[in-house]
Amino acid sequence: MKDPFAGAEPKNGVRQVMIRDPFWDPLREIIRSRAIPYQWLALNDALPGTEPSGCLRNFRIAAGKETGEHHGFVFQDSDASKWLEGVAYSLLSHPDPELERKADEAVETMISAQQPDGYLNTYYTITAPDRRFTNLRDNHELYCLGHMIEAAVAYHRATGKTALLEAAERYADLADRTFGPEPEKKHGYPGHPEAELALIRLYAHTGKEKYLRLARYFVEARGREPLYFREEERLNGNGRYYFADGPLGYAYCQADRPVEEQQEAEGHAVRAMYLYSAMADLARLTGDPGLRAACRRLWNSVTERRMYITGGIGSSPYGEAFTFDYDLPNDTAYAETCAAIGLVFFARRMLLLEPEGKYADVLERALYNCVLSGMQLDGQRFFYVNPLEVLPEACSRDNAKRHVQYRRQPWFGCACCPPNLVRLLMSLEDYLYSVSESRVYIHLYLSGEAEFRLPGGTLRLDCRTEYPWAGRILYSLHADAPVRAELALRLPAWSPRFALLVNGEKAAYRTEKGYLILDRTWAEGDRIELELELRPRLFAASPRVPEDAGKAAVVCGPLVYCAEEADNGAGLHRLSLDPSAEPAWDHHPEVPGKGKAVTVSGWRDRDWSGGESALYRPWGGPDRERVSIRLIPYYAWANRSPGEMRVWLRIG
Amino acid sequence: MKDPFAGAEPKNGVRQVMIRDPFWDPLREIIRSRAIPYQWLALNDALPGTEPSGCLRNFRIAAGKETGEHHGFVFQDSDASKWLEGVAYSLLSHPDPELERKADEAVETMISAQQPDGYLNTYYTITAPDRRFTNLRDNHELYCLGHMIEAAVAYHRATGKTALLEAAERYADLADRTFGPEPEKKHGYPGHPEAELALIRLYAHTGKEKYLRLARYFVEARGREPLYFREEERLNGNGRYYFADGPLGYAYCQADRPVEEQQEAEGHAVRAMYLYSAMADLARLTGDPGLRAACRRLWNSVTERRMYITGGIGSSPYGEAFTFDYDLPNDTAYAETCAAIGLVFFARRMLLLEPEGKYADVLERALYNCVLSGMQLDGQRFFYVNPLEVLPEACSRDNAKRHVQYRRQPWFGCACCPPNLVRLLMSLEDYLYSVSESRVYIHLYLSGEAEFRLPGGTLRLDCRTEYPWAGRILYSLHADAPVRAELALRLPAWSPRFALLVNGEKAAYRTEKGYLILDRTWAEGDRIELELELRPRLFAASPRVPEDAGKAAVVCGPLVYCAEEADNGAGLHRLSLDPSAEPAWDHHPEVPGKGKAVTVSGWRDRDWSGGESALYRPWGGPDRERVSIRLIPYYAWANRSPGEMRVWLRIG
Repeated sequence: MKDPFAGAEPKNGVRQVMIRDPFWDPLREIIRSRAIPYQWLALNDALPGTEPSGCLRNFRIAAGKETGEHHGFVFQDSDASKWLEGVAYSLLSHPDPELERKADEAVETMISAQQPDGYLNTYYTITAPDRRFTNLRDNHELYCLGHMIEAAVAYHRATGKTALLEAAERYADLADRTFGPEPEKKHGYPGHPEAELALIRLYAHTGKEKYLRLARYFVEARGREPLYFREEERLNGNGRYYFADGPLGYAYCQADRPVEEQQEAEGHAVRAMYLYSAMADLARLTGDPGLRAACRRLWNSVTERRMYITGGIGSSPYGEAFTFDYDLPNDTAYAETCAAIGLVFFARRMLLLEPEGKYADVLERALYNCVLSGMQLDGQRFFYVNPLEVLPEACSRDNAKRHVQYRRQPWFGCACCPPNLVRLLMSLEDYLYSVSESRVYIHLYLSGEAEFRLPGGTLRLDCRTEYPWAGRILYSLHADAPVRAELALRLPAWSPRFALLVNGEKAAYRTEKGYLILDRTWAEGDRIELELELRPRLFAASPRVPEDAGKAAVVCGPLVYCAEEADNGAGLHRLSLDPSAEPAWDHHPEVPGKGKAVTVSGWRDRDWSGGESALYRPWGGPDRERVSIRLIPYYAWANRSPGEMRVWLRIG
Repeated sequence: MKDPFAGAEPKNGVRQVMIRDPFWDPLREIIRSRAIPYQWLALNDALPGTEPSGCLRNFRIAAGKETGEHHGFVFQDSDASKWLEGVAYSLLSHPDPELERKADEAVETMISAQQPDGYLNTYYTITAPDRRFTNLRDNHELYCLGHMIEAAVAYHRATGKTALLEAAERYADLADRTFGPEPEKKHGYPGHPEAELALIRLYAHTGKEKYLRLARYFVEARGREPLYFREEERLNGNGRYYFADGPLGYAYCQADRPVEEQQEAEGHAVRAMYLYSAMADLARLTGDPGLRAACRRLWNSVTERRMYITGGIGSSPYGEAFTFDYDLPNDTAYAETCAAIGLVFFARRMLLLEPEGKYADVLERALYNCVLSGMQLDGQRFFYVNPLEVLPEACSRDNAKRHVQYRRQPWFGCACCPPNLVRLLMSLEDYLYSVSESRVYIHLYLSGEAEFRLPGGTLRLDCRTEYPWAGRILYSLHADAPVRAELALRLPAWSPRFALLVNGEKAAYRTEKGYLILDRTWAEGDRIELELELRPRLFAASPRVPEDAGKAAVVCGPLVYCAEEADNGAGLHRLSLDPSAEPAWDHHPEVPGKGKAVTVSGWRDRDWSGGESALYRPWGGPDRERVSIRLIPYYAWANRSPGEMRVWLRIG
């Protein structure tokens, strides 16, 4: 239990966090009561009308308990791990014996497939037991190891049960015996990063240095010449690399050069985020300045040049990948749910490496928009791809947009996103606070309680807020005895103005890297009142983003808004915003999930009178009628009848 | 020689056309002196630095004169035919014994591969002689027949030599023995239409009704149930249709239903244009009202809802196909050069079916923009795809734009476009005029001479104009004796205002379907002076086109203009046009090909001051500097250093 912030394990500084939040509780209750049971059915091939996952059945076949063929992807095992991890977090806040029984059953099924030497991967055990670890480039054995570790750590933390943790260690030990710098070992590393950050969690949870060492090896060996993947291809004759001739090459899996030399966020966005997350953990644990510089550089590459306003990343369906600076097409956006989740992971680790408000700003932006958009409000349908502009006809008629859906899907052949979303949202407790010495960082504003063990004593916060529907946040402090501590309240970049009172009076504070620092001795009953400027505003994209030139998006605190056909009729491209209008913001029955709608004045281009049959004609000035445009939070789109959606609208 | 307008053969009404035009002569001279010899090298695998075509070598192998394997596509033969057809037109206006010798050599090579029964297709003869006509859906034997016929007719017309014509007839006769409604024949039709329009030309050239009948069979059998292609798949077991699961299906090759029931322009755009061209010919020759209605309907579908302002059609690279109404993305546009050429073919045939100015307007728009853009001004590089917006980095880094090039290519594996362009531009004489009874239609304005044999006698026109660089067009009339005739001068839709003088005085005229009709008795020395309103203007797209909302294009008569990086720096998306500015238009040394540039006042968005690292921030109003935007004709783009290009710019 060495490192309090590397994983989701019990904290030294942050003792306990309990979320009781009007925004998040209903969403998490949906996940608990609907999405988790729903996904349990999926893992057990019991979801009507969807392709069977085969996930748990694969484990039974590998264990010799059933006969049959492996079904699904080479990384099908990870679906069970991710579900288990989500269940573990759910059990932490909501003990549920029935659910725990199912989870125990899953654990038992998984472990039954483990081989005597610790190996556990159903794809290889069933189809090619002699080919283990021979195609690290494309297959996902180590990725599955990583997810198994994360599940094991979380499940141990939630239940105290050790079976899965022991199994995960056995598999990790096998990996440790197999991979490393020693001459007799394989000098490979995962094609899809994940094991790295998981091994660091395992190290933090168990204190066993070997896991940290292996994680470090995987990160540091990556991309060095002679390139392991190229050697592997030669040995295998397993064919030309799919991406070899395209724009991606080995950058697809961030293995074109050593990580410290990587200048821009390249390749598959989820792989990048998982790798960068491990890099940030390692930079913190090792103090390596080159790694820290690489983390900062790659963070900037992502968030300053390659990120949608929703926190979506990886703009291209080709390789689910980054393309180039400022290339952020809205209607062909990939912006995979898992990539935004990965960005949240990366952001959290950057906050632990060096607390700065900009990391939390992005974390929050991704969380409230691209991540949340991944799930229907009933918890039973999901988006893999999160576009910022949708014309339903284009999804079916234009092959370049075939990856875009205008309705969430019940399940996916590649079902990485739904359980990933569950495990993130059910562990939200771990993202709110961090402690550094006697300073408590408040990164996110959610109602609930938290307890911190600080050098000066134990401090408890009770937060009450209607955030993100209002900018007022109240803290009541509780301490058995006065505690000297700094409270660092994040001041989001979107709220340059604010009001801050302590016990009803203007308080002395200083600002530091996006946080308001209140340094005092706190006593039972102290009250902090922070009022952020949370109101709808028009946002612009940098003039360097071609796609958004002449357009604006409506943003309200952490929430990005969008126009839907359900509120505004078809032809959303005809709408333009009036820049002088003051957007109104209020709860509205039409907003799915009972959020607030934004209403803003603008115009709608009229059809050409008498010229319906003309496609082009001399420009005759704008011909438009004034309309009231209604926008809803982006995360809530596609929860009504299918139709068009747009985040960026023309302005002026 | 029955039908004067079905092909490019000598006309009864239009006796002789000689182009002597300051705009077209240099372009056609480049084609004559550079592109035709260059393509000869390509056909002979003698083009340095490009993949060998194998085209003529395939004929030699099929003839048993060489050994080796067939190289290239199943339709590789058609490259030779298209080249020959272009050469034939060139010889008509420019006798050239050396070129004719090469052409004779090509003819001899082609004919040498003809089988005793008339069959001539090198792919099947070399690789699978027993599989002839078994895969009409995907392979192109009848398409190659069509191009052979077109070449043969043109070559006979130009040289009087009969060898190729006789060979083409032998192959056509074999097709006639093989396909048709009779029970013992195959009930198939070409997967890629072309034979249909070619057989009609052969009928017109030879007067042999059987060719018209076969063309008619091919058109009328198309798309009827039971679907021939589905039957063929069953017989062959040649696999699931590639497009079966996509949005295209059998509409890819316009075979999803009978042609008279086709409601919208669907599928592969070149196939559609070649089919519709044959339909328009048949509607004219047969008077079939259903076919005429289908032609009108499909024409409207293309030109009122699915055509770029450049005359480019087929917006999607998937299937090189149409997508849906008003779906005209600029940066992923396919807009194949051959498709625009096909639109010119279709438009010309609609003009013959029912002369209306709208057909000529589109013909001219496609010709001066998307078609001409297909060739570099030096005649040695070509575009297959003609986008309306290019960011070079996107072409290499964004896989969704991998079909888009920002530099013309020296040759293509699928080299359909270059020789197609040559044969169209070298037969431009056939597109200028048509005669109906005693009426002479003037569709296009080019300097040169033309002679018409009319019921009242022979009339000669001598045209002088600097069109498209000026709107003034002068005709001198020559007649040995006075001739009563109607002259129908096209009034382009872009020029609602005009001045028309006959012998220096305002003349009596009436307007009819886009033409100014001058009905009088013409005498030697009469002069007509037409002044069109040819000046740069801003054009808008219909508000139904999402991609062009809030944007305008600069159009000057038939020419569409575009902004290039070479004139305006990088970041063309930052430019916006001032709607109140009066565009200036003048010759400019920077315009490739010495055309006129448009200069128009506008703005350029400034970089965010002090916020270089921000990607999004609250909208602060436009921050832009006034700039002078220079535009060049679209056809001339990509003739300088590579860079960005845009047709549609923001306005206001």
